[in-house]
This record gives sequence, C-alpha cells and structure tokens, in this order.
Amino acid sequence: MQRNVALYRCRVTTSGPRKAETIYLCALELLARDGYDNLTMEAVARQSGVNKTTLYRWWPSKDALLAAALTVAAPLRLSIPDTGGFAGDLVALGLEIGRLLSSEDTSPIVRAVLSASAARPELASVGQRFFGDRLARERVIFDRAVARGEISAGLDPAFVIDLLAGSLWTHVVLRGETFSESYVRTVVGVILRGVSSPTV
Amino acid sequence: MQRNVALYRCRVTTSGPRKAETIYLCALELLARDGYDNLTMEAVARQSGVNKTTLYRWWPSKDALLAAALTVAAPLRLSIPDTGGFAGDLVALGLEIGRLLSSEDTSPIVRAVLSASAARPELASVGQRFFGDRLARERVIFDRAVARGEISAGLDPAFVIDLLAGSLWTHVVLRGETFSESYVRTVVGVILRGVSSPTV
Repeated sequence: MQRNVALYRCRVTTSGPRKAETIYLCALELLARDGYDNLTMEAVARQSGVNKTTLYRWWPSKDALLAAALTVAAPLRLSIPDTGGFAGDLVALGLEIGRLLSSEDTSPIVRAVLSASAARPELASVGQRFFGDRLARERVIFDRAVARGEISAGLDPAFVIDLLAGSLWTHVVLRGETFSESYVRTVVGVILRGVSSPTV
Repeated sequence: MQRNVALYRCRVTTSGPRKAETIYLCALELLARDGYDNLTMEAVARQSGVNKTTLYRWWPSKDALLAAALTVAAPLRLSIPDTGGFAGDLVALGLEIGRLLSSEDTSPIVRAVLSASAARPELASVGQRFFGDRLARERVIFDRAVARGEISAGLDPAFVIDLLAGSLWTHVVLRGETFSESYVRTVVGVILRGVSSPTV
C-alpha cells in the first residue's frame, strides 16, 4: 500500500552523525509510508543509498534501527521547555506533543511508530523505550517545579504525562479533533487543580 | 506475519443477528492476527465459512465491515455503569476501558483496530465513528450527574473521556504498565478535582 509520505529527507549525502540522522529519517518515513510489515533493511538501504552491510553493522535488526531512530531522530525530539513556571512548562510541552501528533511533517511518522508499537507485542519494547526516554528528559520540568515549591516531590511525572499526552492522543489522533492551544491550556488547568492535593 | 490471536469465535454456525456478530468477530480477529493490510474480504469469507458474495452484499468494503464490527461487536461493547454517583461511574468506566486494553481476549483486537485507524488516514473515519458512538452512549453518565447536581451542565463529556481513556491508553498500551484499579481511582480523583471549577 502506498502512503502519501514524502521521502524528501531520505537521502544520505554526508557522513558521521548527520549520516545516521538521515538513515533514521529514512527508516521512519518508510515506516510511515509502507507500514511496519513492509519495512525492510533492504528498503532503507536502497532508499538512503547506504550499503546494506553497513546498516547491519550499525543496527543488528529493523527493530534496533527503529528503536534508535525513535530515540534520536530530530523531528521526534521534544525540546524541554523552561518558562519559569510549572503550568507554563506543561502547556509548552503539551503544545509540542500536539504539534508532533498533528503537523504534516511529523504526524504520519509518530502515528505509524506509536501504532505499530501498540499493535505488535514484538515492538512494544521500542515504544516503551521511546516513552521511557521522553520521561527521563521531561523529569527536569518536575524537578524544577519541586525546587520552586510548586508541586510535591511525590508527584509522579509519568502520571502527569499520561494525562497530558494521553488526552492529546485521544483528542487529536483517535477522535480526529483539531488541535488548539486552548484545549492544551484547559487540560493543563485540570491536571494542576487535580494533582494539587496531598492524596496524589 | 502470524500473530498469536485465537480465532476460536470465528465460525458461523447460526443465522440472523448472531451470524453478523460472528462475522464481525472474525473480521476483528483476522485484523488483530494479520494486520490491516493483509485483511481481505476473501479471508473473512474463508475463515467464517460465509460466501464472499454474501459478505459484499452486506458490507460494500472491508472498511465498511470493520466500521460496523467496531460499533456493534460484543467484546468491544462497554456497559454503561450506573453506580449512583459520578465518581463511581467514571471509575467503573475506566476499569472497563482498562480491561478492554489489557485482557487477553480483547486487547489484541482493540489495539489493532485503534492503531490501524490512527496510522491510516483512510481508516480515520472508522476510528472516529467508534469514538463518536462510544461517547453518545456514555453521555447518560454525565446527564445523570448533572441531574444529581454533581457536575455543571457545561462540562464536556468528550473532554473528560479524553483524559480518562487517554491516560489509560498511554499507561497500559504505550508505556506497557500493568493496569490497576488504584491507578484508575487516582486518575478519576484528579479529573474530578480538576473539573470542579467554573472555568472548565
């Protein structure tokens, strides 16, 4: 099945770190276009112009390549906001997640990756690694909020991110609603009021 | 690719409504086992023992069959709780959603369906119909809570369900965490405290 995914970033012309980055983009774009089952190391090699033997030397399998691509590929990277306040940081983070899920540039890749990892037990660890990695980076938002006395040190970052990212996923991807800043602000407001209690 | 999904419910032995129900199960189980791209009306016909011409007379396409299956198939049906209170109803609903996402019986189907609809624009309407239908049925929980004076009539049910279902999806499916009643109770507590404000 052909999907409407541009492979414009998928051509290796440099070497070193940028070379790996291009191969990651290539793998993710092929995943978005062709689906997990149809994604092969051969296709990545052909499309990127990199020798298949080279690919296998760097990543022993398609899943290893995807796991690495998910973790480091630039379009899927979330910048960690630092607005000076917990509410502002969460809104900025929510806006970035919403943008990843809805922009023409990243949405096909993110949806293909997260869907593949949800539907296939053998890929679950890839998705979990992706989320674990994201969580580790986002923890600093929570550490700063604790230091400023805005939240309790016992507040579980994963719990808050589940609510923020989960509602965006349901709203934008599953329900097909338009993503808006006002929606993110409302979600963050509810989460902040909801967790401002010693029982959470 | 072979998936570990039992097709034990996939055999038509009766006629009328139960016949349609069996065909739905068959389509969903084949979807979970083989993936969307490999699902064909031929396979559904072969597996269920129903003539392909009959299938096409009832559903003009694979997507039409999937949309119908999603909406009415028994394993994906959520019972609408009536515990006498809004918090209790939301916890019961969250427990059912968590069970759908994690039980061996339903999890492969739900994940395959929601993932396919998330990753494929052409299937988006199937997923959206599924969610629209669910939301319409769940609205009664909110109507009763408004009548009891527990929540404002302006509270958007979709907004609450996004938070509840979304956090469960992220927690259980994307993060691979174990589903627990205590997690659902905590999420519902946060949502209820969060929305108990005139600004939502």
